[in-house]
Amino acid sequence: MKGSQPILVIGTVAFDSIKTPLAEANEVLGGSATFFAMAARLFTPVQLVAIVGKDFPSHHLKMFEENGIDLQGLVRAEGSTFRWKGEYEENMNVRRTLETHLNVLEQFDAKLPPQYQSAPYVFLANINPDLQLRVLEQLEHPKLICCDTMNLWIIHQLPDLEKVLKRIDIFIISEEEAQMLTNEHNIVRAAREILKLGKFSLIIKRGGYGAILFTQSNQVFAIPAYPLENVVDPTGAGDSFAGGFMGYLASRDSVDLETVQRAMIYGNIVASFSVEGFSVERLSSLTREIVRNRLSDFLMMTHLVPAAVHVE
Amino acid sequence: MKGSQPILVIGTVAFDSIKTPLAEANEVLGGSATFFAMAARLFTPVQLVAIVGKDFPSHHLKMFEENGIDLQGLVRAEGSTFRWKGEYEENMNVRRTLETHLNVLEQFDAKLPPQYQSAPYVFLANINPDLQLRVLEQLEHPKLICCDTMNLWIIHQLPDLEKVLKRIDIFIISEEEAQMLTNEHNIVRAAREILKLGKFSLIIKRGGYGAILFTQSNQVFAIPAYPLENVVDPTGAGDSFAGGFMGYLASRDSVDLETVQRAMIYGNIVASFSVEGFSVERLSSLTREIVRNRLSDFLMMTHLVPAAVHVE
Repeated sequence: MKGSQPILVIGTVAFDSIKTPLAEANEVLGGSATFFAMAARLFTPVQLVAIVGKDFPSHHLKMFEENGIDLQGLVRAEGSTFRWKGEYEENMNVRRTLETHLNVLEQFDAKLPPQYQSAPYVFLANINPDLQLRVLEQLEHPKLICCDTMNLWIIHQLPDLEKVLKRIDIFIISEEEAQMLTNEHNIVRAAREILKLGKFSLIIKRGGYGAILFTQSNQVFAIPAYPLENVVDPTGAGDSFAGGFMGYLASRDSVDLETVQRAMIYGNIVASFSVEGFSVERLSSLTREIVRNRLSDFLMMTHLVPAAVHVE
Repeated sequence: MKGSQPILVIGTVAFDSIKTPLAEANEVLGGSATFFAMAARLFTPVQLVAIVGKDFPSHHLKMFEENGIDLQGLVRAEGSTFRWKGEYEENMNVRRTLETHLNVLEQFDAKLPPQYQSAPYVFLANINPDLQLRVLEQLEHPKLICCDTMNLWIIHQLPDLEKVLKRIDIFIISEEEAQMLTNEHNIVRAAREILKLGKFSLIIKRGGYGAILFTQSNQVFAIPAYPLENVVDPTGAGDSFAGGFMGYLASRDSVDLETVQRAMIYGNIVASFSVEGFSVERLSSLTREIVRNRLSDFLMMTHLVPAAVHVE
């Protein structure tokens, strides 16, 4: 990994309770920063900024550390770890939140350890945009800042989110969030509206249908999803996509368009593993070798055969 | 168009009345065979087998003929032309049928003119599978038979549809139809079930998300849709996809995997034009030159840059 750079991520570390039409899991490790870190660590070292409660078990900490995830920015506070409970419809692209207990998240100040302030690659995972802003203010000279968000912040904290968007390089959100943010169902028009909110490139995640990139200079890059036979739990798919995406970028230490396109493919593949199990089950057993093999399959399934480029 | 072969299509020619969240159209030219023929004619001559009533205006007939569509198989019967009325939700992928008046369709016997019986390329557009079967029985030595259907026949005439499926080479249906046919939400598992119904390859159309091919030998090919800014009316998108797809195949007189993959891309592009207007507005003004230009755009937007093939 010549030139590989570490990634700083701020986000949530949580216990998730999830029900899908086929199975359920209770109090399993989740959170936006967890999925991101466990995906990105395949490509480069990760610095994790998050908060957990005293109830957070040491074997999870050990797992993070064994996977090259630096925990100097992980605060262990009095109280309970953030908990989320949700349910998926048969169409796994649709989910409902049943319960949210912020717990220690309410006292989180997102203070970076001094040695993190020079981080070149930064991912603002889904968390209160107020905390994302605080991280931005502590950074010295970042090379690339990517950001995710969720419906809750679009509805209740849009002004803060808009401040964040003015200062980032790549915004990664779901199709539903893009529609909600713009009140526009058409994805091309929604993208155009969102691009006006800053100078960033935009990646819209389309669940089981792939992802699409829109840049400020009107470049578009669309990829289908890897067709999966067993979707166990979509929770964390977007964070895993972002982890694979940014992990690849940081490992190449490059942000040109070609690298961004390839990074999207890596993100796509890493996310496809993530949803094949609950929590980080699949991500934690993943190796670059396994990712490479599925990536080869994916390229076979999508690559426009060279002859197709000759337009008749 | 060296080696180009004509295509025989049987399906409906109709008057559609359509309401979308933004606009509406009354009694405009529609029907599965209409959209298919107007798309396929870009690539190769088309033989149209359908029935209309005495109310069908001669300017539509003239338009068909001027576009290289042979009307010797078009019956003009006493009575009214088939009429369909439907409405789209804001999510243009979801539609509701408001009215269906079969009219002359009820007396249609799908008899082929003798000179059509040797047709090499045949498309069984969406129509009663009983009529699709009758066409199959009149064919002498077809090279390639493709077939489409709809929810109505899956629900009410599955045994006939299953007989059709035993005798075709490529089955083209929508994602919702695939799910309905198998009671299976996951597209990979649904595809596997459907492939058991015959020896055909399967193309599943995913509306604004693209299309995916599954073959009997486990090959998969997935493409995203062309990102469209103005979707006026999705009616006929699937038929236009099939028309571009089969038109390209017949124009190359080839059905190998590479040609099928390229044909999917052509189908995809032709369908993207079709939905930009009501009826055949856009299809009728389309030229191969215009298709080529959007195809180039699409390849730019999706083509995995050569370097991406090198897996790191």
